[in-house]
Amino acid sequence: MPTPIEFLFDFGSPATYLAHTQLPRIAADTGARIDYQPMLLGGVFKATGNRSPVEVPAKGRWMNDDLARFARRYGVPFRFNPHFPINTLTLMRGAVGLQMRQPERFMAYVDAVFRAMWVDALNLGDPAVLAKALGAAGFDAAGFMALVSDPEVKARLIADTEAAVARGVFGAPTFFVGGEMFFGQDRLDFVCEAAAG
Amino acid sequence: MPTPIEFLFDFGSPATYLAHTQLPRIAADTGARIDYQPMLLGGVFKATGNRSPVEVPAKGRWMNDDLARFARRYGVPFRFNPHFPINTLTLMRGAVGLQMRQPERFMAYVDAVFRAMWVDALNLGDPAVLAKALGAAGFDAAGFMALVSDPEVKARLIADTEAAVARGVFGAPTFFVGGEMFFGQDRLDFVCEAAAG
Repeated sequence: MPTPIEFLFDFGSPATYLAHTQLPRIAADTGARIDYQPMLLGGVFKATGNRSPVEVPAKGRWMNDDLARFARRYGVPFRFNPHFPINTLTLMRGAVGLQMRQPERFMAYVDAVFRAMWVDALNLGDPAVLAKALGAAGFDAAGFMALVSDPEVKARLIADTEAAVARGVFGAPTFFVGGEMFFGQDRLDFVCEAAAG
Repeated sequence: MPTPIEFLFDFGSPATYLAHTQLPRIAADTGARIDYQPMLLGGVFKATGNRSPVEVPAKGRWMNDDLARFARRYGVPFRFNPHFPINTLTLMRGAVGLQMRQPERFMAYVDAVFRAMWVDALNLGDPAVLAKALGAAGFDAAGFMALVSDPEVKARLIADTEAAVARGVFGAPTFFVGGEMFFGQDRLDFVCEAAAG
């Protein structure tokens, strides 16, 4: 039996988008179930003392090239979002809220937001832009705003982020397979090996 | 014709040791010449605002696992040096000095120091330990100390480190193939592709 793959994600991370594009193939290849687990990357950075690679300008410049190389290798569309970094608090609350209240719509939301962020390169920090993108994906803006304002949803995102940090998470994407942690979309081959057992 | 691979290294980086173990295979596979270029990683960090990944404790813990996984995959010996981080100024001056004064002994020195640091896990920051390790590799301690005290050698290491930063380097190992820069021992597959053309 393949071991399930836990995928801890935040929409704000371009490497996490790249990992997301590869997970259907990995699920098919390994037979492993993929468990998407939202977390707030900003909260993880604050708790661990980590920071975005782009805060080192030379690293940020290289990362642009590196992400483009992986996108070419994977054969997936990718555009570095010119509005980066975008505050993802509302987006991640939406992910947690759908998991809690409408789990059957969770993956459609995840797909739509990753695409809007890293293919269409929209400014999802702008509520009007976000409402339009969600509308195009079949999500009602008023219902969404109610969901992300729900105190239980807010508390769950905080709790899930704290739980991730307690498990050793310091960035995104992070994978857990059995007891093993893997960091980075560039570790998907190790993730596959671990899931296949 | 394969494109030469420039390998910018500092002995203090365990990922750089792992890359070093793979370069003979890559040279054989691609036919590319490998140009070893010493730089002082501490100087690169200072100039770019970058820092060692272990300064984020959670990242440091994960990195230990990650390096061990790659060592297993590569089938090479690896022991995380308990004295890490070790000040590599003398070691890197030695590398530059041999390049300048005894280039025919440069690679023997590089092999010996990487092995002493990341296989034997010696405290090379201790002059007595270093002298013994160099002696075992056939290097005369007095001659070595004269070499690393040479003002021209010192100046060359500074100049080479500044030149690396000017090219966009922010960490180790870094590779250049033609006009392209690659960071990390986990990018060796891209380095191979670029060298093969």
